[in-house]
Amino acid sequence: MVYDLSVSECDEILRHERVGRLAVRDGEGTYVVPITYAFADNAIYGHAPMGKKVHLMRQWPQVSFQVDTIMNLSTWRSVLVQGRFEELRDEAGTFRARSLLVRASGGSLWGATSGHGHATSLADAVLFRIRAAEITGRAQNH
Amino acid sequence: MVYDLSVSECDEILRHERVGRLAVRDGEGTYVVPITYAFADNAIYGHAPMGKKVHLMRQWPQVSFQVDTIMNLSTWRSVLVQGRFEELRDEAGTFRARSLLVRASGGSLWGATSGHGHATSLADAVLFRIRAAEITGRAQNH
Repeated sequence: MVYDLSVSECDEILRHERVGRLAVRDGEGTYVVPITYAFADNAIYGHAPMGKKVHLMRQWPQVSFQVDTIMNLSTWRSVLVQGRFEELRDEAGTFRARSLLVRASGGSLWGATSGHGHATSLADAVLFRIRAAEITGRAQNH
Repeated sequence: MVYDLSVSECDEILRHERVGRLAVRDGEGTYVVPITYAFADNAIYGHAPMGKKVHLMRQWPQVSFQVDTIMNLSTWRSVLVQGRFEELRDEAGTFRARSLLVRASGGSLWGATSGHGHATSLADAVLFRIRAAEITGRAQNH
């Protein structure tokens, strides 16, 4: 049976997981990569080296982010966050992002790497958040 | 260290995994969902109920598909397939897709469900493939 997840179930999955897939528009198509993230303030906090995904998000800030827990092909939960890319540049914003990402990565700055891209320390990375406009979830239990 | 994967390494990951994330353009933004798939003929074969992702792929057939093997935050491999959505309607195409998907799902028609969407038997599903125009891969070993 496939069913919708409640807001609190989506929230729980977003807080529990550490890796999600960020999908950004790329011209007529899309670009999708795994990234480590932290979920707080109804936003996905992430970091990335200056590279393709940052360039794409600057051009097309309306992005989506997907997180799942897959036990097997017929038992899974998946959450979709749709929102807007927001680059963090001021001290308060970057401090908040770094703190959340360090905590999510288990306390190591260097452990917070950047998915499909180059490994980048938080100190060198572009810090951003995706403010959730809509969060929806689906699950199946066989 | 983050490094590029060879074609044969990407191939191996695509053949080994069972679930990937399909990212489709949705107006100014994107829509990303997990789907079960089979990889053959340099294409991702999949199925979906008639619903949002099929409507979006018909409108914006240039899609991307991402598969990963994540051991932990600093040891992972990720493959990105960029290509074109192609709906399979003729007998040869749908037979090929069903055979591949049944094999990938462990032999059960009903086991081949459709990720974020509704559970749909292969008999009722829209069958499609994404012909790979480009396959790239990245990995990190800490």
